[in-house]
Amino acid sequence: MITKVHHINILVRDLQLAVSRYQAAFAIEHFEYGDLPERGVKTARFRAGESWIVLLEPIDAEGVPARHLAEHGEGLFLLSLGVDSIDKSRSHIDSSGGGVIDASERLGLEGWKVLDLDPNTFSGAVLQLTED
Amino acid sequence: MITKVHHINILVRDLQLAVSRYQAAFAIEHFEYGDLPERGVKTARFRAGESWIVLLEPIDAEGVPARHLAEHGEGLFLLSLGVDSIDKSRSHIDSSGGGVIDASERLGLEGWKVLDLDPNTFSGAVLQLTED
Repeated sequence: MITKVHHINILVRDLQLAVSRYQAAFAIEHFEYGDLPERGVKTARFRAGESWIVLLEPIDAEGVPARHLAEHGEGLFLLSLGVDSIDKSRSHIDSSGGGVIDASERLGLEGWKVLDLDPNTFSGAVLQLTED
Repeated sequence: MITKVHHINILVRDLQLAVSRYQAAFAIEHFEYGDLPERGVKTARFRAGESWIVLLEPIDAEGVPARHLAEHGEGLFLLSLGVDSIDKSRSHIDSSGGGVIDASERLGLEGWKVLDLDPNTFSGAVLQLTED
């Protein structure tokens, strides 16, 4: 069911500062930038093999990422696991005891179809599925 | 420099409970188990494409993982990025402004050579490099 680590989100207070530090330390040649107003964040991301590392700066204090940052501070926020089919994965999780937060998927960066899972089911980890 | 997401560590209070939930929800066929007494954890891990997802339960209250769990709770703990060479990567990071915690690498699960980075340099994220 899980095909790869699709992306990992890291919450930061200052996106440009984070980009400059990651770029220098890891000799990253290229960042992709993108805003996601529905989540209240601006983002910059770079490749790590088949995965994306996404730096997120909240720009809306009421959004889920901003509230997570206020509660937990900066750092690792969300792990999104790649799957072939959101619909089949949701059906499997529902039949295995549950763990899906929303009835339907939403759109992430670049129109990725994502499905948020319930941290209470996964020992506190903020997990998500992305259909690739 | 970064070749892939080598592994992601998720801190849990009850490893067997976490394994049973992840296994059921994601139809995971196989877990690898391993203790890492130097870090004070027992672990179970499964593949996600080219990456490992590692569930960690602290068994030593004085270890770094146990202290992180006490301070931050369960959930995503550490992101380890794959590199071809720890030595070359450390030299580059040192020359780019720093960010390495220890002077030398240590051994992780399965004898992986790992190098811990300083969260203060990377906007609060607990990062590590693993030589693959």
